Amino acid sequence: MRRARDLGIPFEGSTGTYNAITDVPGVTVGYATVIEGESARTGVTIIHPRGGRNHKPVFAGTFAFNGNGEMTGAAWVEEGGMLEGPIGITNTHSVGVVRDTIIAWQARNDAIYQRWSCPVVTETADGWLNDMNGFHVKAEHVWQALENAQGGTIEEGNVGGGTGMLCYEFKGGTGTSSRKLPEKLGGWTIGALVQSNFGRRHQLTIAGVPVGEHLKEHAPFSSGENPFRQESGSLIIILATDAPLLPHQLKRLAKRASLGMARTGSLGGNGSGDIFLAFSTTGTGITKEPIANARYLANDYLDPLFQASAYAAEEAIINSLIAGKRMTGHKGVTVEALPHDKLLEIMKRYNRIQA
Amino acid sequence: MRRARDLGIPFEGSTGTYNAITDVPGVTVGYATVIEGESARTGVTIIHPRGGRNHKPVFAGTFAFNGNGEMTGAAWVEEGGMLEGPIGITNTHSVGVVRDTIIAWQARNDAIYQRWSCPVVTETADGWLNDMNGFHVKAEHVWQALENAQGGTIEEGNVGGGTGMLCYEFKGGTGTSSRKLPEKLGGWTIGALVQSNFGRRHQLTIAGVPVGEHLKEHAPFSSGENPFRQESGSLIIILATDAPLLPHQLKRLAKRASLGMARTGSLGGNGSGDIFLAFSTTGTGITKEPIANARYLANDYLDPLFQASAYAAEEAIINSLIAGKRMTGHKGVTVEALPHDKLLEIMKRYNRIQA
Amino acid sequence: MRRARDLGIPFEGSTGTYNAITDVPGVTVGYATVIEGESARTGVTIIHPRGGRNHKPVFAGTFAFNGNGEMTGAAWVEEGGMLEGPIGITNTHSVGVVRDTIIAWQARNDAIYQRWSCPVVTETADGWLNDMNGFHVKAEHVWQALENAQGGTIEEGNVGGGTGMLCYEFKGGTGTSSRKLPEKLGGWTIGALVQSNFGRRHQLTIAGVPVGEHLKEHAPFSSGENPFRQESGSLIIILATDAPLLPHQLKRLAKRASLGMARTGSLGGNGSGDIFLAFSTTGTGITKEPIANARYLANDYLDPLFQASAYAAEEAIINSLIAGKRMTGHKGVTVEALPHDKLLEIMKRYNRIQA
Amino acid sequence: MRRARDLGIPFEGSTGTYNAITDVPGVTVGYATVIEGESARTGVTIIHPRGGRNHKPVFAGTFAFNGNGEMTGAAWVEEGGMLEGPIGITNTHSVGVVRDTIIAWQARNDAIYQRWSCPVVTETADGWLNDMNGFHVKAEHVWQALENAQGGTIEEGNVGGGTGMLCYEFKGGTGTSSRKLPEKLGGWTIGALVQSNFGRRHQLTIAGVPVGEHLKEHAPFSSGENPFRQESGSLIIILATDAPLLPHQLKRLAKRASLGMARTGSLGGNGSGDIFLAFSTTGTGITKEPIANARYLANDYLDPLFQASAYAAEEAIINSLIAGKRMTGHKGVTVEALPHDKLLEIMKRYNRIQA
Repeated sequence: MRRARDLGIPFEGSTGTYNAITDVPGVTVGYATVIEGESARTGVTIIHPRGGRNHKPVFAGTFAFNGNGEMTGAAWVEEGGMLEGPIGITNTHSVGVVRDTIIAWQARNDAIYQRWSCPVVTETADGWLNDMNGFHVKAEHVWQALENAQGGTIEEGNVGGGTGMLCYEFKGGTGTSSRKLPEKLGGWTIGALVQSNFGRRHQLTIAGVPVGEHLKEHAPFSSGENPFRQESGSLIIILATDAPLLPHQLKRLAKRASLGMARTGSLGGNGSGDIFLAFSTTGTGITKEPIANARYLANDYLDPLFQASAYAAEEAIINSLIAGKRMTGHKGVTVEALPHDKLLEIMKRYNRIQA
Repeated sequence: MRRARDLGIPFEGSTGTYNAITDVPGVTVGYATVIEGESARTGVTIIHPRGGRNHKPVFAGTFAFNGNGEMTGAAWVEEGGMLEGPIGITNTHSVGVVRDTIIAWQARNDAIYQRWSCPVVTETADGWLNDMNGFHVKAEHVWQALENAQGGTIEEGNVGGGTGMLCYEFKGGTGTSSRKLPEKLGGWTIGALVQSNFGRRHQLTIAGVPVGEHLKEHAPFSSGENPFRQESGSLIIILATDAPLLPHQLKRLAKRASLGMARTGSLGGNGSGDIFLAFSTTGTGITKEPIANARYLANDYLDPLFQASAYAAEEAIINSLIAGKRMTGHKGVTVEALPHDKLLEIMKRYNRIQA
Repeated sequence: MRRARDLGIPFEGSTGTYNAITDVPGVTVGYATVIEGESARTGVTIIHPRGGRNHKPVFAGTFAFNGNGEMTGAAWVEEGGMLEGPIGITNTHSVGVVRDTIIAWQARNDAIYQRWSCPVVTETADGWLNDMNGFHVKAEHVWQALENAQGGTIEEGNVGGGTGMLCYEFKGGTGTSSRKLPEKLGGWTIGALVQSNFGRRHQLTIAGVPVGEHLKEHAPFSSGENPFRQESGSLIIILATDAPLLPHQLKRLAKRASLGMARTGSLGGNGSGDIFLAFSTTGTGITKEPIANARYLANDYLDPLFQASAYAAEEAIINSLIAGKRMTGHKGVTVEALPHDKLLEIMKRYNRIQA
Repeated sequence: MRRARDLGIPFEGSTGTYNAITDVPGVTVGYATVIEGESARTGVTIIHPRGGRNHKPVFAGTFAFNGNGEMTGAAWVEEGGMLEGPIGITNTHSVGVVRDTIIAWQARNDAIYQRWSCPVVTETADGWLNDMNGFHVKAEHVWQALENAQGGTIEEGNVGGGTGMLCYEFKGGTGTSSRKLPEKLGGWTIGALVQSNFGRRHQLTIAGVPVGEHLKEHAPFSSGENPFRQESGSLIIILATDAPLLPHQLKRLAKRASLGMARTGSLGGNGSGDIFLAFSTTGTGITKEPIANARYLANDYLDPLFQASAYAAEEAIINSLIAGKRMTGHKGVTVEALPHDKLLEIMKRYNRIQA
């Protein structure tokens, strides 16, 4: 699997071992990819904040840059500051089954923290390649993704919830990246996982280069019979960190995911549900005892984390594009992959990659 | 069916014809009540903002007084100002099936306004009388509630999503009320529908009278072996109006539902998901054309609507209590109804009802 | 000075020593009262979260139930979770001078925490008794209130920022109250200080009794030539506590101040700027070091604090009414005080005070 | 005065006549520049949404990307959806005097819309070149800016509130730009005015080119004795449009200002108060009558406005840099201007300007 850095695309900052959200200790990711017949091109992605066997809540915060989408469970994250279980990401019309199935899994594992559960499940719309109204994601797929989650290297592109997604009118989907701060800045790790399904072709920007302006072929929404005239689709970004942060600080991190999005050229179209969540696995001391202790970083020391959040989100988006593979789906629609060779040629023309 | 006003309990303001959310022209309400075996005591309530055959969006706004609960679809109401389909209310662990089934119903009826749907589904937890982890609400129940919705007089108490709910540790559930403003104040109608599942017994206040202080028997969470030490459960309030209001004004109405809650004595406990939504059926001129016209009330003329919102919400809560009937459910738990005779006796003692 | 409890009005819960915000260790309150000539009836109130010599920030949160008013500094409280200096409360048109003078005082005392200061200054409109456009609050008054702040018993009624304020169309102004939780619930203290300038007469409710319905005389906005047809004025509530709480939890406390307001009958009119702030003096461990420790209460243990917040806010409002004294001001307008004797008579009629 | 486009820097979209916020019909801008002695390097900028003689409110919305700053009046914009008078922009410690003086000006002009005024005044910190604690902005300066406002071409750089500001550690300050949409997209104009005082040198990005990486000299916070280790300062962006938009839609425009910021390289540091406001001069039909009519654009037609908001904000920031002139101020500190020649050389190196 080639990734953006392998191609020589320049990014800011140093990554963790796997350049993935799984670089944050404990975080695991599971996928179910549903490709069946001519119309099912979808799936579900699961993120376990502490791995699937540790059900202790984490502090979290959310931010909707453009709320044309869904993130169930966001009300309690906002109110209580906590994320109490796994996160699901799927297609827009399958959020319900993913949500209820996560509860069933929690009930089976005695992992419901309060006396009820309001899981975080979020989505992007794969209605271009997938028959969303066919409701192809089933409870069994959700169980599969919950159970097969793992750390280390994880797949990108046409996988899990990202299976049928488009990004800047190329094939997009799932992408991930991470940043490891220097020890003198705390040594914290921040990981991002995105489900990319957003952006108009002409906006696509990579490392500052107006790539989209030079790659106008095979742009389904920008030419000819044009079903999606506005920017459509959505972008989900999940940030994980081992930096000790309080809920209101994690909301600030989630906001910085917007900057990662902006760095790839998007302007946050009306049709795009750009919704972000950040959680911290460390320092929160959540307990059933009356008084807990939370370690946290002073405001004055947050800038490196803010930057790492934006950088990791940006690179995860580009990784989703680099990994996305040509797909034919519902009603015979075909979406092309971003051509690596042409991309490199353009990057060289703008002196962002050495010729 | 006796209602709070029938008993002589004093409330502020004049009601509409049915003293129900259905007094707002077009609004219909459907129920599916699921009472099966020893453990299923639940259901689903559907509100069609314009009736089930008119799929034109309405302007809407939401407010979470305490976000320990779920309202799917709230992100788009906040961002886009629109509610694009029916509202579902159910138990906490059935939100997903209600959500996805509403989408299926919309797809069947060619009633998806954008190219995807993020329905508003909200909940309270009936885990005391109902086996929430049994997932007893099925797609067929949702279809039933979507299809059987009607205007006019609607049921209250142990019905629909409210079937298994508790209110101030008495049997609660579904309640409704409305206010019709005098013509000189615009003549607008405001209706409220609540799913009540909140409050500690000692807090219960009716028309200012500290009723709960005198009705301490059969209070499951306030005495003996006490599984719910904190205030638990939740309160959902849906406000409908034919007053022409903009989205940011409807959010203000939704906030006033908090005051209706407060007037019945609750103090908004940590465990209570107190989440409210208001929509307007009038004046919004939503269109697929580029430019629309919205009539709206000037800020200086909103006070009567604010008051009516609080009053209707308050009375709908009390109606849910008055209509709630004794129920035995999951694990043999029994919850008593508010005893009308004792209530009246207390009201008289405080001179709020004539002896 | 007689206070509401002295008259026998029943309230929930036990107060601290002074039944004042100053029961929270460290909190001091200063006033400058500006009564000059026929038109100046105003002033400024200062709250030092840790006393005027301890400039260490506190965690804080805010909530605007109805944002028709001003609270400078709220953006940073929301973002950073911190309150970095004294709070000022004054009339609407003097917020600027109070704000800049607090900065000057901070600069003089080397008490600017970042390299700039955005103080919290909030207000209600005393334009009925005071000539707001005369800008009668001067820098010297702000210095005076900053310097004369003290703990222990503090004045109420026509004092400080509350000098010219009205409450339910009686003379209102400054009020305070506190709650001390039982040791088994943590033993925490919560104090409230309000600047009351809100409410229509007929809404006035005391301990559940519809007092306003029986006291319709001398209600300037409800009768005759009626310049303020809607509910006008505003309500500021500041909550202080020594309970260790995180910023997002303090926002939840600030929300509960709305319930205290509701318990006195208000319905949150369009014209009323009902804006609340809560801060905690304990457990926050704010430091210039990179990593700090915050003690905090688990969500499941917040209910007693939520209740105490509402109760203290409610009683502080009633105290402002009980302490308010008849005043004649700008253009010869006179506002009456709430008549204690008639109030008690009504309370007895409703059996809320023993005859 | 040379501007960014004059140098050949590429931007997206077509500008209005003046490439300024004043391209929106009615909008006028006034400045008072306070350069006195060795320490006063500050001033005030005023924006009249409809010109200084038309006091009719406009619909408005705000967004704080990072609330480490002040925008007075934001609570009422959020709640009421209205901006009721001129906007002031100044240094952090002079917000109060600007605010109260705007009220005095409104009172003099019989231009207070409600019975009180809560003006919008916002700020950035010029404490590097200006002695903020000297409080050099006086009421007379505010009057001057209120009265001298004009349309057409307006000054940029070291002028008005922007006089002493820094941007990416070069001299910044005031900048403006506009976009005129093609007639087929509605023909609307969007203008931006920024007060730029943010960004670390290495982040500076112009038209995608990593300019800051190649211009590391004379970067006061990035080298040597470093008083501002984190990103400091702030960014204010005011967007004006003649597109008919509702308050919740204007908030969405204000959010897009974040993207304009991001396109210049900033990552939204903790110390930066990045606060934005958008208003519409058209279609709002605000009236003292009970029912008003608002024209507004359907959600599906907002994308061109979203893009124009980001583009205009981006170009206004770059214009503030291009116009900024070397300044020596408080304590002899000198800040350099962005060197145009070196900038162009770098742009050519990356093929973003033809050699």
